[in-house]
Amino acid sequence: MVGDGLLTGGFNLAEHVSGSDCLIVSNETVAPIYLQALTDILSGKTVNTVLLPDGEAHKTIDSSMLVIDELVKAGANRDTTVIALGGGVVGDIAGFAAASYMRGVSIIQVPTTLLAQVDSSVGGKTGVNHPGGKNLIGAFHQPKLVLIDTDTLATLPQRELAAGLAEAIKHGAIADAEYFEWIENNATALLAKDSDAMAHLVIRSCQIKAAVVAEDERERGARALLNFGHTFAHAIENNLGYGEWLHGEAVAAGMVMAAELSELGAAEQGRLAALLDAVGLPTRPPAIDSEKWRSAMSLDKKVAAKRLRFILLESIGKAYIAEDVPDSLLTQVLARGNA
Amino acid sequence: MVGDGLLTGGFNLAEHVSGSDCLIVSNETVAPIYLQALTDILSGKTVNTVLLPDGEAHKTIDSSMLVIDELVKAGANRDTTVIALGGGVVGDIAGFAAASYMRGVSIIQVPTTLLAQVDSSVGGKTGVNHPGGKNLIGAFHQPKLVLIDTDTLATLPQRELAAGLAEAIKHGAIADAEYFEWIENNATALLAKDSDAMAHLVIRSCQIKAAVVAEDERERGARALLNFGHTFAHAIENNLGYGEWLHGEAVAAGMVMAAELSELGAAEQGRLAALLDAVGLPTRPPAIDSEKWRSAMSLDKKVAAKRLRFILLESIGKAYIAEDVPDSLLTQVLARGNA
Repeated sequence: MVGDGLLTGGFNLAEHVSGSDCLIVSNETVAPIYLQALTDILSGKTVNTVLLPDGEAHKTIDSSMLVIDELVKAGANRDTTVIALGGGVVGDIAGFAAASYMRGVSIIQVPTTLLAQVDSSVGGKTGVNHPGGKNLIGAFHQPKLVLIDTDTLATLPQRELAAGLAEAIKHGAIADAEYFEWIENNATALLAKDSDAMAHLVIRSCQIKAAVVAEDERERGARALLNFGHTFAHAIENNLGYGEWLHGEAVAAGMVMAAELSELGAAEQGRLAALLDAVGLPTRPPAIDSEKWRSAMSLDKKVAAKRLRFILLESIGKAYIAEDVPDSLLTQVLARGNA
Repeated sequence: MVGDGLLTGGFNLAEHVSGSDCLIVSNETVAPIYLQALTDILSGKTVNTVLLPDGEAHKTIDSSMLVIDELVKAGANRDTTVIALGGGVVGDIAGFAAASYMRGVSIIQVPTTLLAQVDSSVGGKTGVNHPGGKNLIGAFHQPKLVLIDTDTLATLPQRELAAGLAEAIKHGAIADAEYFEWIENNATALLAKDSDAMAHLVIRSCQIKAAVVAEDERERGARALLNFGHTFAHAIENNLGYGEWLHGEAVAAGMVMAAELSELGAAEQGRLAALLDAVGLPTRPPAIDSEKWRSAMSLDKKVAAKRLRFILLESIGKAYIAEDVPDSLLTQVLARGNA
């Protein structure tokens, strides 16, 4: 469900909550702005709330357990619905708690950041970080409903808007050259949060992601393409400590690195880097020691049987899985941030 | 896979581990007896091991996270197999860790207690306890293989043997009158760990449980019948602190309470109590305050929409779900332990 004004009376969420009670999970930044509106469209239901600290650093098993503590305290049962109100971090923590409480209760995602709207709220992946790697603890748990009110983007800081655009650009790069070109042509409108442009972006990105996921929910094949740029991105986040760079920023630098590994040709590589740069995203990684790059990447979930696999581009709009990447080329790409 | 001598060379487990490495999860009691044998039938694989403290009191999220820490430390990936060697507690902790690590890696169950062999290793339920209730945190995660070597029962303490028989008696009581009668007639042989009798018991119980689960993996209907006695049992365990009574002991007392609630008739009620008593199981609950009973039961997962549901017996061999139980009768049954 994508539209504007949905949180401010345009949608009766209570009708989509089957049980009598729900637990809203949000954070200290988002709750003051949208919690009251969300509670209002749940009229008639028993609504409990738990607020988590904001930020990727708090995407831990302890945060998911806080949510479960609140469910226990509220006497929640299998008919209880968890509602995640916030960005990807809130959605992931709440999603894993909902997947695990009583072996699974319903979750409704109400993403309020562009990143969560175009990416993490679709597809059913939930998870929290482990000191040894990102999203190492999690579950596949499809949301019962994803409620996207594009009006929430009005309050989104510009840096987070750009981080969300990184994933949308990724969708174009791996699966839809026409969409990629549309983003190139509408970068200014998107940065100005033009509501028609934003709505088209959210809808098209959700469509692409949903189509890839529908083909391969458990990520045995095609779904891996969505990880374009992510092997590098996770290593960046892991080395800097989660939260230093936003996820979308790390993905942006990671996509440029993956494009270089693709031997895509200078023109198309340049097009990708130029678009990322135009929306204010980094196009090169931070300085990270070569050993640290490699050790962080070998923990990445995309490693099948301890062999590094990369998602590369054949052209803008077409991605593939590469099992064998020349090590010398990889070394060169990893050194980019040190130049 | 059920048989004797399987751990001592009768079975090539390595052939069933698809990746190159595995992590054996066991505890301080079981490992000294069977870990070497299990490692031997994994010849050719990289085998890591983690030992947990023994006992239901350790069935916590922290224990599952210890297992995940070891997986991270070993550089485990999606092709890694977790192998649970031990009773139901080890199986549950390891199972939930396997379900959650990288959103799910394979688990092989090697149950060494009768309770785990006839019950917890079959059906894919995994989970750990929360201070507020038993198994409140968990996942459905089917094992890739269940390897049952009935020789392991030789070292099982008599009290745990009886606790395992409680679940087998439950299988007869809810689904197979003939099997119930067979247990009545073979109680002496079972208590003496006669190997033919044990093999028949394990196989028949696994068949019954697997048939019920196959019909209803996610416990929306028929699977709930397996919870006969368990609403009371969980309340007993919750009130005494996990581990005071063995789970099977609590189930035994809980089944007698559920039978009384069933108005099954004195003769069949007596038959159930007599069989439980014959194998050395308790047939009445401990003294628990009425308020505490009710508060513990309302957290039980079998509570649909905050309404107490009970699994009751129509006759030995036939169970049903009761939505409305007269409160006066319930009060009477709850007071049993106070007499």
